[in-house]
Amino acid sequence: MAESAYKEMWEKLNLDIDAHEGLLEVLGKFYGDIYLSQQGRLQGAEYLDFVLSEVHGLRIKELQDAKAQGRKIIGSFCVFVPEELTLAADAVHVGLCSGADAGTEMAETMVPRNTCALIKSFVGFKLAKICPFTESCDVVVGETTCDGKKKAYEAFAEHVNMYIMEVPQQKNACDHDLLRAEMKRYMEELEKLTGKTIGVDDIKKGIAIANGKRKAIQGLNALRKADPAPISGRDALLINQISFYDDPVRFTAKINELCDEIEARIEKGEGVAPKGTPRLLLAGCPMAVPNWKLPYIVEGSGAVVVGEESCIGSRNIRDLVDEDATAKATTVDELLDLLTDRYMKIDCACFTPNDERLDNIADMAEELGAQGVIHYALLFCQPYSHEAFKVDKTLQAKGVPMLAIETDYGMEDVEQLKTRIEAFVETLES
Amino acid sequence: MAESAYKEMWEKLNLDIDAHEGLLEVLGKFYGDIYLSQQGRLQGAEYLDFVLSEVHGLRIKELQDAKAQGRKIIGSFCVFVPEELTLAADAVHVGLCSGADAGTEMAETMVPRNTCALIKSFVGFKLAKICPFTESCDVVVGETTCDGKKKAYEAFAEHVNMYIMEVPQQKNACDHDLLRAEMKRYMEELEKLTGKTIGVDDIKKGIAIANGKRKAIQGLNALRKADPAPISGRDALLINQISFYDDPVRFTAKINELCDEIEARIEKGEGVAPKGTPRLLLAGCPMAVPNWKLPYIVEGSGAVVVGEESCIGSRNIRDLVDEDATAKATTVDELLDLLTDRYMKIDCACFTPNDERLDNIADMAEELGAQGVIHYALLFCQPYSHEAFKVDKTLQAKGVPMLAIETDYGMEDVEQLKTRIEAFVETLES
Ligand code: SF4
Ligand code: SF4
Ligand code: SF4
Ligand code: SF4
Repeated sequence: MAESAYKEMWEKLNLDIDAHEGLLEVLGKFYGDIYLSQQGRLQGAEYLDFVLSEVHGLRIKELQDAKAQGRKIIGSFCVFVPEELTLAADAVHVGLCSGADAGTEMAETMVPRNTCALIKSFVGFKLAKICPFTESCDVVVGETTCDGKKKAYEAFAEHVNMYIMEVPQQKNACDHDLLRAEMKRYMEELEKLTGKTIGVDDIKKGIAIANGKRKAIQGLNALRKADPAPISGRDALLINQISFYDDPVRFTAKINELCDEIEARIEKGEGVAPKGTPRLLLAGCPMAVPNWKLPYIVEGSGAVVVGEESCIGSRNIRDLVDEDATAKATTVDELLDLLTDRYMKIDCACFTPNDERLDNIADMAEELGAQGVIHYALLFCQPYSHEAFKVDKTLQAKGVPMLAIETDYGMEDVEQLKTRIEAFVETLES
Repeated sequence: MAESAYKEMWEKLNLDIDAHEGLLEVLGKFYGDIYLSQQGRLQGAEYLDFVLSEVHGLRIKELQDAKAQGRKIIGSFCVFVPEELTLAADAVHVGLCSGADAGTEMAETMVPRNTCALIKSFVGFKLAKICPFTESCDVVVGETTCDGKKKAYEAFAEHVNMYIMEVPQQKNACDHDLLRAEMKRYMEELEKLTGKTIGVDDIKKGIAIANGKRKAIQGLNALRKADPAPISGRDALLINQISFYDDPVRFTAKINELCDEIEARIEKGEGVAPKGTPRLLLAGCPMAVPNWKLPYIVEGSGAVVVGEESCIGSRNIRDLVDEDATAKATTVDELLDLLTDRYMKIDCACFTPNDERLDNIADMAEELGAQGVIHYALLFCQPYSHEAFKVDKTLQAKGVPMLAIETDYGMEDVEQLKTRIEAFVETLES
């Protein structure tokens, strides 16, 4: 390992070297416990292990190389920021959502204590200087989704170069217009940043890459209908997490290979847990790297996770940009219309109403053969904790049991969660 | 008192008579302790006492009479809902924000525990059937402001006829367009509801009434610059609260009379506290009837409140609809433009950024001769608790001390708040 070369790079990025080393150590231990300990793992998981071991190393090196070639790095915290346009500008798009408790005390000097763990994490990572992704970004694109992020970005902007994209809150005609205007404004911002004029072919290329990534994960999810489950929920979550920061073309190729291996496994009737193991769908807030807490607890409680209804999961990959219409489009305006149509379909709890999400969860549970759903809300997350009530009602009407949990990134409640989840799983088995 | 006649009315409104009686009793006791105990109160406060004593009586009777005449009753929870249009449709506009702990346990079956007290209050009032205003409404107009309200309205709509108006989150061109579209949509909704076509003169009448109300309170606030303070913060808050549900024309006349009395008092050098008493500005979340907790504590701690920077305070009355332009307007579209211009100036913490608010608070503190600011956020209110950090920074730069508090409607923390506020006031005196 070129550890020392990385150290130099981290120093140039102005990381707090000691604190960063501490983070990597914890991360390594976690990964060992949660991932490397798994039985009967897929061969293709080597790619996951490699990417994760090099997450602050090789991948950051690639970002620096891209920068040296004059390419720009765009960070984002939400699936509403259109990666297609970033790619069209030949910039690199990385998801920054942080999934670890770090720098929390520092974060609380800038955001209220009653803020969700995800927000405190990205603020804390910045203040503690331990995230090489954040430090590599030329611009971080925030969005007006939940109150917590919307307001935290104002504080974050004191430390980071930010651009804010507005996301509407309903799905009426005026909302479509607003998002369409914001697509255009973001494209123009990218043109200013990169000095590049974005043309029809550039956007088409961006759409092809982003759709390719989505189709690869769609393929993976379709295979997860099999019983026995051919891949663990942990590994599937990791794949979704990696999709936010690895090179998209490499990622797509690797996941397609992995799917081939899974198909062969299904044919042989093999899986990661015995046939008949209770199957659960997780629904709710995104689980950002390295937040593996819930699937780890669930899969240690006699169940297997067969789907993730979240932005680091199905919400990000369910809808493609219309491929036929893209092929036929001849103007940038038409393509921006198509992008707007696609992004307006996102069923984030920040919308009101957001009934599509209720249907989508019920459909997923049925298609994946899940016997129950765990609704996951980060403590103090208003949108998802409110929506848990409606999801519960919808699932009740379909006879699918649901367990609602609210938690953060701390480990204090692990035993308590384990007890609740085991009890829930037992009711499913009977 | 025509108690028994009211009882019949309350029964018709399907109130829970026992629970409602309990509420009135607590309210009466509170009012006695906090209001009637004041020394040197203005003669014009008789109007306030009367309105408050008849809040669930005579005023509700007036609403029923209006309904009997075919007029519609519109409830709202936010100063973004344009009263001018409601009045233009000859409907009655009442503010419903609830300021008391009641039905909280019931509310928590529909909204998360970590929800602000104001939201729990309106949900609880509905489920406990103790609010005759809510029960009198033909439509309640919600808005997409904070996440908490936005999502709670979805649950509320299972019990109440709701209409949701979208409020944008930034102040760019596309946001102006969105609010303009929503003004029109609301007007059309009112036309559907009332069967009345809204014309130029109707809107002009609505603007005149709403502007009149705002100017009356502006006049009151200007008089509060005097030292000694001519009116208590409690009474000033009550006036702002009453402005949301009393008849607007009567209200305006009464407040203008009260201002005449205050002027005479100022000439004589009289006030509610000795000259030189420490003067505080309250800033933050709205304090809905009967939430008098903070000014009561402050004015029992050796200080006097000279201003309320909140939606039940200056935020609602600072900006008029342009009067010259209104006089010249000849089309409904022009008037909707003017309304949009006025409403886009509101400096609610739901906007990002919301720097106007920082300037407005600093200006208010200076104009009113406040030596300090208390920033008031309801527990779990994301927008205002985040913004407290920025307000503090702004005021620090101006040398104005600020105390940030977070609380709810409970009485458990009163002693603790009193201790903190007394300590804060002492630093001002030295
Ligand atoms: S949950 Fe909503 S706000 Fe969060 S990343 Fe997804 S779309 Fe964005
Ligand atoms: S988990 Fe909830 S509160 Fe936190 S960033 Fe996501 S939507 Fe916002
Ligand atoms: S604080 Fe904001 S959301 Fe609340 S009433 Fe005022 S404008 Fe509306
Ligand atoms: S106090 Fe805050 S959380 Fe509560 S309704 Fe008002 S803006 Fe929303």
